[in-house]
Amino acid sequence: MKKIEAIIRKSKYRVVKDALHEIGVNFFSYWDVTGIGNEKQGHVYRGVSYSTSDIQRRHLSIVVNDDFEEITIQTILKSAATGEVGDGKIFVSDINETYRIRTGDKGGDTLR
Amino acid sequence: MKKIEAIIRKSKYRVVKDALHEIGVNFFSYWDVTGIGNEKQGHVYRGVSYSTSDIQRRHLSIVVNDDFEEITIQTILKSAATGEVGDGKIFVSDINETYRIRTGDKGGDTLR
Amino acid sequence: MKKIEAIIRKSKYRVVKDALHEIGVNFFSYWDVTGIGNEKQGHVYRGVSYSTSDIQRRHLSIVVNDDFEEITIQTILKSAATGEVGDGKIFVSDINETYRIRTGDKGGDTLR
Ligand SMILES: Nc1ncnc2c1ncn2[C@@H]1O[C@H](COP(=O)(O)OP(=O)(O)OP(=O)(O)O)[C@@H](O)[C@H]1O
Ligand SMILES: Nc1ncnc2c1ncn2[C@@H]1O[C@H](COP(=O)(O)OP(=O)(O)OP(=O)(O)O)[C@@H](O)[C@H]1O
Ligand SMILES: Nc1ncnc2c1ncn2[C@@H]1O[C@H](COP(=O)(O)OP(=O)(O)OP(=O)(O)O)[C@@H](O)[C@H]1O
Ligand SMILES: [Mg+2]
Ligand SMILES: [Mg+2]
Ligand SMILES: [Mg+2]
Repeated sequence: MKKIEAIIRKSKYRVVKDALHEIGVNFFSYWDVTGIGNEKQGHVYRGVSYSTSDIQRRHLSIVVNDDFEEITIQTILKSAATGEVGDGKIFVSDINETYRIRTGDKGGDTLR
Repeated sequence: MKKIEAIIRKSKYRVVKDALHEIGVNFFSYWDVTGIGNEKQGHVYRGVSYSTSDIQRRHLSIVVNDDFEEITIQTILKSAATGEVGDGKIFVSDINETYRIRTGDKGGDTLR
Repeated sequence: MKKIEAIIRKSKYRVVKDALHEIGVNFFSYWDVTGIGNEKQGHVYRGVSYSTSDIQRRHLSIVVNDDFEEITIQTILKSAATGEVGDGKIFVSDINETYRIRTGDKGGDTLR
């Protein structure tokens, strides 16, 4: 199982959520974070200096089975992008085990 | 070392905290999150349609030594459950290293 | 790639941020958390009982390439410490992949 963490523009949240819903990813958590962008690169975009330090970010944490990793990432990449600097990042890591608290069941079936 | 992430009902927080305290898990962080539940399953429970989308969630992040993984999970499963849909999830992943900032010490002993 | 999670005193945030900037770590996310400290150890420090339960914490999540792991950790250890109990913790874990949403690029270069 994989954890997909996406740090997106808050303004893109609904579009991303709806796109995830379309591919059957209906379960995740989110909270709002402050992002420190890559100031070293100067945020010069098409010749215009640009500060991303005050862009409001939303952190989505989505745990999926391995066969859903690729489509989930591609869906976020497509729906969260504006093409302007500061669109955000996606980080992928391993999850060893998952449990549904109501039933005590564990394993990938609890993600379906 | 393992990271145990538990997304529980906010209303169950104190019971879970006290249960963790009883087994000697006295260190963790938490913050509040919004949970998007598994809407695909329709949230029909005992014939009644049921929305979990507005249940307030608390995200607990607990790092433990490997020999504490099982008892920590079992304790959360027992204390966080109501039996109704939307009780939450537990995710387990690996932690490579841990440091205590005050002393600079690293390793599993910093978790005791 | 590695994820470095640092739970620090909120009051130390600016010092830590500036120290990270000095070593070229200009990109991370943070949010505020509540920390439950190791109450079992009694928080007796130099003979004085001391409660850390209401210390406000900030959670930094920093993804770096492997060659930045050590310097990032050492920089946080140095800048976040006061020497008093409750200075916080650092947790290190593996990140499999990272993506820049604007371009769709993946891999360690997206962290530079
Ligand atoms: N290495 C990182 N570790 C943790 N969080 C990060 C990292 N890099 C970026 N972020 C988070 O993602 C947010 C958005 O990053 P941003 O979109 O500016 O990435 P970027 O690589 O600079 O791409 P761009 O060139 O499009 O600006 C940051 O504000 C921060 O919250
Ligand atoms: N795959 C997931 N990835 C990330 N967070 C999740 C995932 N599944 C559930 N969550 C989080 O856990 C919360 C509770 O989920 P929930 O208890 O409804 O799980 P469930 O599998 O639908 O179980 P139940 O059938 O008892 O409702 C969600 O609101 C969300 O915050
Ligand atoms: N095992 C853990 N899992 C998750 N979070 C933790 C863990 N241990 C500590 N934390 C977080 O770090 C914060 C600070 O911990 P603290 O500095 O008190 O660690 P400590 O090991 O007790 O060190 P000290 O002896 O200096 O107090 C806690 O309030 C909590 O938010
Ligand atoms: Mg940027
Ligand atoms: Mg549900
Ligand atoms: Mg302590």
